[in-house]
Amino acid sequence: MASFPTNSAQKTGDNKSDCRARIAQLGLTLHGPHLPHAPLLPVVVHNGIAHVSGQLPRIDGRITCRGILGETVSIEEGVEAAGVCALNALSVLELALGDLDRIQQFLRVTGFVASGTNFTEQPKVIDGASRVFHSVFGEAGRHVRSAIGVAALPHGAAVEVELSVAIAP
Amino acid sequence: MASFPTNSAQKTGDNKSDCRARIAQLGLTLHGPHLPHAPLLPVVVHNGIAHVSGQLPRIDGRITCRGILGETVSIEEGVEAAGVCALNALSVLELALGDLDRIQQFLRVTGFVASGTNFTEQPKVIDGASRVFHSVFGEAGRHVRSAIGVAALPHGAAVEVELSVAIAP
Amino acid sequence: MASFPTNSAQKTGDNKSDCRARIAQLGLTLHGPHLPHAPLLPVVVHNGIAHVSGQLPRIDGRITCRGILGETVSIEEGVEAAGVCALNALSVLELALGDLDRIQQFLRVTGFVASGTNFTEQPKVIDGASRVFHSVFGEAGRHVRSAIGVAALPHGAAVEVELSVAIAP
Repeated sequence: MASFPTNSAQKTGDNKSDCRARIAQLGLTLHGPHLPHAPLLPVVVHNGIAHVSGQLPRIDGRITCRGILGETVSIEEGVEAAGVCALNALSVLELALGDLDRIQQFLRVTGFVASGTNFTEQPKVIDGASRVFHSVFGEAGRHVRSAIGVAALPHGAAVEVELSVAIAP
Repeated sequence: MASFPTNSAQKTGDNKSDCRARIAQLGLTLHGPHLPHAPLLPVVVHNGIAHVSGQLPRIDGRITCRGILGETVSIEEGVEAAGVCALNALSVLELALGDLDRIQQFLRVTGFVASGTNFTEQPKVIDGASRVFHSVFGEAGRHVRSAIGVAALPHGAAVEVELSVAIAP
Repeated sequence: MASFPTNSAQKTGDNKSDCRARIAQLGLTLHGPHLPHAPLLPVVVHNGIAHVSGQLPRIDGRITCRGILGETVSIEEGVEAAGVCALNALSVLELALGDLDRIQQFLRVTGFVASGTNFTEQPKVIDGASRVFHSVFGEAGRHVRSAIGVAALPHGAAVEVELSVAIAP
C-alpha cells in the first residue's frame, strides 16, 4: 500500500481530473451513467456523503453478465461483472459530483452476488469492484465491505454493488 | 416530476401536518407503528439522519404477505406488500420524530424480496415502496435504492424494506 | 431496560475501559481482530461514525459455524455464531478506536443468515449479535436492525453481521 501512487502524486499538469487521468492510465472505460427509473435517484448527496444506488453490470443499457455464480457464471466472469458495476458507480458519481476528484474517501461497499447455495467465493467476486476503487483512488479507495450471496438480482444480473463515499465540501 | 405537488404546496391551513394531509389525500393508512422486540429500536436518530429498522408487511401485528416471489406470491401482491412496508416505516418515523414533516430528504432504501432463483423483477416489487415515499414527500421522497432477491425473510414475509432519511434539526 | 446497568454505572475504579470490564464481567472473549484482505479496511471512521466491514463467525482465523440454517445448522448454533460475529466487530472497533468506550451509540446492524427457503427465524439468530451489543453497552448498544435470509455467505459461514456506530470525537 505504501508505494501506491496517491491522487496527489498523479497531478498530470493538464486540466483533466486526476481520477479521470488515472482511469485512462489503467485502460478503464466508464460506460455509464446508467440512470435508474423514476422516482429513484442514482446518487443522493447529504452532509458530505454521496449515497449511490445499487449498480448492475450494464454496458450501453444491456446487462453484461446474467446468471448464478456456482451454476452458470464463473468466478472470472463474476469478477469482471463486479468491475463493471464499480465503473458504473463512478459514472453516476461523476455525474452527481461534477468531478470524481471531489471524492475524499470510500466508506462502505456492499456486494451482492447471485449465488447457488454451495458457492462461497463472494469475496473473490466483489474484489473485482474493490480493486477498481483502489486502483483509481489509492488509499482513498479503500473501504469497509460486506459480500453476500443472494438468491437472485434485478434483470438476472449476477452481481450488484452499492456504496457510499465521503466527499469534499 | 415538475408538476408534482411539493410539500410546501400542500399547506392545508389546519393544524395537521402536511405529510399527514397528503397521506389522507392519497387514501393511504398508517397501520403501525409496529415496534421491534427488545433490545432493538425502530428508529435511531443521529446527527441529522434517522435510521429505520427493516420493515415487514405487517398490519395489526399480522404479516400480510408471506411466501416467495416467482413461486407463491405474484408481483402485484409483492408490490402491495412493499407499500405496506413503506407505510410501516412512516409510522415508526412519525413516532420517533413527532411529525413526518421533519423529514427533509429520503436517502437510501434497500428492498429485500424473497425470491425464487428465476425471479428477477425485484425492482418492480420494491417500486411499491418507492412510490409511497415519492407520492407522500414529492422530490424529498426520491432516494437511492438497491433491490435484492433473497432466500427467505423473517416470519416468512415476502418483502422487507429498510431505509435512512435526513431530518431537519 | 430501566434497570440495565449503564456504562457510567460500571465505573470500576481501575484503568481498564468500562466496556472491557463489562466484557470480562459477562465472561465474553474478543477473539479478533480478524483483518480483511487488502485493499479492504476493517473499519472506516468518518464524521463521527465508524463503519465496520461484514464480520464472520471466526475464531483464530477459522470459521466456527458453516452451513445453512434450516438445513445443516440449528438455531442455537446460529445464535452462537452471530455472537461471535458481534465480538469480532468489537475487536476491530477496539483496534480502530483505541478504546471501545469511545462508542456513543450503535446505529444500524444488518444480519445476514444463510437460510434454506423455509427458514424464517432470522431474527432469533441475529439476536445472538444484538444481545452482545446490548449486554456490553446497555442503552448505547441498542440499534436498528434488519435480519435477512440469504443464499450463501463467504467461506460457507452461516452468519455475517455488519454495522455502524456513532463515536465520540
